[in-house]
Amino acid sequence: MLELTKEFLDQLRLQIEDGRDVELAAVVGELHPKDVADVFDALKREEVLYIYRLLDSDSRSEVISEMEEDIREELLSSLSSKEIAEDVIEGLDSDDAADALADLPEAKVEEAVRLVDDQASASEVLELLNYEEGSAGAMMAVELVKVQEDWTVASAIREIRSQASDVANIYTIYVVDESGRLNGRLSLKSLLLNASSARSILRDLKDDVEMVSVEAHESEEVVVKMMERYDLVALPVVDASGILLGRITIDDAVDVMIEDAERDYQLASGISEDVEGKDSVWTLTRARLPWLLIGLGGGVGGAYVIGAFDIENNPEMALFIPLIAAMGGNVGVQSSAIVVQGLASASMNMGNLAGRLLKELSVGMLNGLICSAVIFLTSLLLGFGWNLSTTVSASLLCVIVFAALFGAFVPLMLDKRNIDPALATGPFITTANDIMGLIIYFSIGSLVATWMP
Amino acid sequence: MLELTKEFLDQLRLQIEDGRDVELAAVVGELHPKDVADVFDALKREEVLYIYRLLDSDSRSEVISEMEEDIREELLSSLSSKEIAEDVIEGLDSDDAADALADLPEAKVEEAVRLVDDQASASEVLELLNYEEGSAGAMMAVELVKVQEDWTVASAIREIRSQASDVANIYTIYVVDESGRLNGRLSLKSLLLNASSARSILRDLKDDVEMVSVEAHESEEVVVKMMERYDLVALPVVDASGILLGRITIDDAVDVMIEDAERDYQLASGISEDVEGKDSVWTLTRARLPWLLIGLGGGVGGAYVIGAFDIENNPEMALFIPLIAAMGGNVGVQSSAIVVQGLASASMNMGNLAGRLLKELSVGMLNGLICSAVIFLTSLLLGFGWNLSTTVSASLLCVIVFAALFGAFVPLMLDKRNIDPALATGPFITTANDIMGLIIYFSIGSLVATWMP
Repeated sequence: MLELTKEFLDQLRLQIEDGRDVELAAVVGELHPKDVADVFDALKREEVLYIYRLLDSDSRSEVISEMEEDIREELLSSLSSKEIAEDVIEGLDSDDAADALADLPEAKVEEAVRLVDDQASASEVLELLNYEEGSAGAMMAVELVKVQEDWTVASAIREIRSQASDVANIYTIYVVDESGRLNGRLSLKSLLLNASSARSILRDLKDDVEMVSVEAHESEEVVVKMMERYDLVALPVVDASGILLGRITIDDAVDVMIEDAERDYQLASGISEDVEGKDSVWTLTRARLPWLLIGLGGGVGGAYVIGAFDIENNPEMALFIPLIAAMGGNVGVQSSAIVVQGLASASMNMGNLAGRLLKELSVGMLNGLICSAVIFLTSLLLGFGWNLSTTVSASLLCVIVFAALFGAFVPLMLDKRNIDPALATGPFITTANDIMGLIIYFSIGSLVATWMP
Repeated sequence: MLELTKEFLDQLRLQIEDGRDVELAAVVGELHPKDVADVFDALKREEVLYIYRLLDSDSRSEVISEMEEDIREELLSSLSSKEIAEDVIEGLDSDDAADALADLPEAKVEEAVRLVDDQASASEVLELLNYEEGSAGAMMAVELVKVQEDWTVASAIREIRSQASDVANIYTIYVVDESGRLNGRLSLKSLLLNASSARSILRDLKDDVEMVSVEAHESEEVVVKMMERYDLVALPVVDASGILLGRITIDDAVDVMIEDAERDYQLASGISEDVEGKDSVWTLTRARLPWLLIGLGGGVGGAYVIGAFDIENNPEMALFIPLIAAMGGNVGVQSSAIVVQGLASASMNMGNLAGRLLKELSVGMLNGLICSAVIFLTSLLLGFGWNLSTTVSASLLCVIVFAALFGAFVPLMLDKRNIDPALATGPFITTANDIMGLIIYFSIGSLVATWMP
């Protein structure tokens, strides 16, 4: 992988300044398109445009498909309609082209489309723009290789040759019936192994496996789960009547997987927008503020709970407030995280809500008993006295059990109502458990103060 | 996807009981191997073995490669050496076979290997067992299609046909020189497009791209990053002198990606072992206990911080303890999560530590000022008085700035010392920030009590 050093970038800038275009084109031409995209990420807009126009036509398209969305949008808005027509609509796979066009003003897209030679493929790209974002239809590319089941091997090979030039990776040859309905697949391998029997009918060579496909309106989550589950490198997309529309390749599914994982991770860490370290200070601040404000609200709530208790006559109760609050939050996050992951990987059987909660209850009890015993002995040894030690250890047990159940219950409930359960992991669980923990602690404290004065 | 209902499982159990083997084989035979593996996951050991022996030889191997590791280990330990030889060593791809054998006692493996017809491929599998777990070598399969650059198209097609029968998905044909050194690739597509010019030399048909490969000793993290970065479906593995050893396919890389994401997520949520909701109560308890004990330690530390302050004469200071503690933890987790993600995706430039911390300082200041202003006004409006409101808002600002810097600093430091930065996100950051927050709060409280009595 290319190590992007300051020296390398400075060298490029110098070559731009001096107009040493041949040299520059040679240096950049040796890089992998993904590396060029990274270089673009680090350069200024005019510099990007300068280098971009030195690339040959194939590389331009490849680099565009590798660029980060924001930088790509910037670059495309500087290009002419003719360049959009050639480098994007003609040069990219239909799914990447549609992604790129989605960010451009409609008038420019129309103008560019008019400049494309192959109007049929241009309108295929435009059609992809109609699918809802996040659906299988919006993820798919129309480029694929398909053959009809009643063809012979010889005619299939002829047809495949002509189709293959548009398709970057063939992976699988789809077999359809006369009306275009998907009804099987043929591996390149079996075609290669049977190339000598040119008269065989494809129907007899079709792979004898159940064909996995997805309807265009399904969500990208379904796509990713299917591809992961069945180890697919390409998933065919069909309409409601089974007509083959396109296919989704594994590289796009991997991108969605990574985005989902990052999103869940950020939600669990209390970050509400998709941000990266390189985003602006204001974007980063805004992404973090919601949880902080919820935390503030929780803190004020906590102040009221403590204020309702006679803290002035039992000031020693203050000592263990941080412990109780922290433990409630920690346990809640732990149990919600396990539920969220279980739901995401579909390994959790939701039919069995009661069983799930019973298990959380057991885990909570066990953890609670251990922690409660540890804190009781520690607190006694450190000389905090019987009353305080009893209060802390009894309330810790209650807090841990409550937080474990609550942490598991909330994401399960959200999921049942079709709300993203990952929302539960961050602010809500911790804040709710903080307050509930204080209520338990001070209630038990009052009881102990009354009974064991 | 198969919906695993209780009715379906009961039906299978009934068929096993009644010995209706033909019926049972037909029902299970219609399922995808992955679905059969899920069924096995839900059945008892004897039931699994019963159904397994009804499957045909191909399905047995496919199901084994799809099973969860613990269930697979259980099943394999019940099989005879002959079954291991046929269903595992001969039936699975070399990488899956090596994974499966790794769990078996050495004597049984040796016996099984002796029963394999093709001793050459058996010893290839055994060799894979020598690579260190988590290395590219341990991930790769030796099955691949390779041709020599000085061959003609005709001889290549003949050779590929004979090699291809062992390889589930060809993806790419690797081109090597006479000594076996990888020096290019040939797509099935270009072979198909050039099949008519049988006399052409492969050297002239080779794809004109830089060949991406990985050395066998590299870690799986490197493999995953490369495959993700360059959108590869297969990555060739070479030794130090460039000899082609095997290849890693995208399905295995995806598995590693998902495991890594789950691990990071669990660490951020304070879970220290790789657990799933269906694990035993004791496993789940043990995975959560470490953070809880660290949290307990932090809580006791917090008690000492509060005890050092004259809480008896300023009991109102107790009211905002939960707020200060919670905010320190929250901010710390947020800023460490962004750094951990940046490091994982390699988008963060570590050369620039000072710049990174300066940015965290800005974000912390901005968030701190907003939260501090909000709490000052709220607290005054709610009648908590000037002294307490000043103390809370001033310390909140300090706590937020400190926690943001500390949360970013710790994972950066860990990464510099080659320790997994994700370790920082859970227990350490929150506990350290809790305590630091309390120290700041009570120090400022003492100052305010002295200056504004």
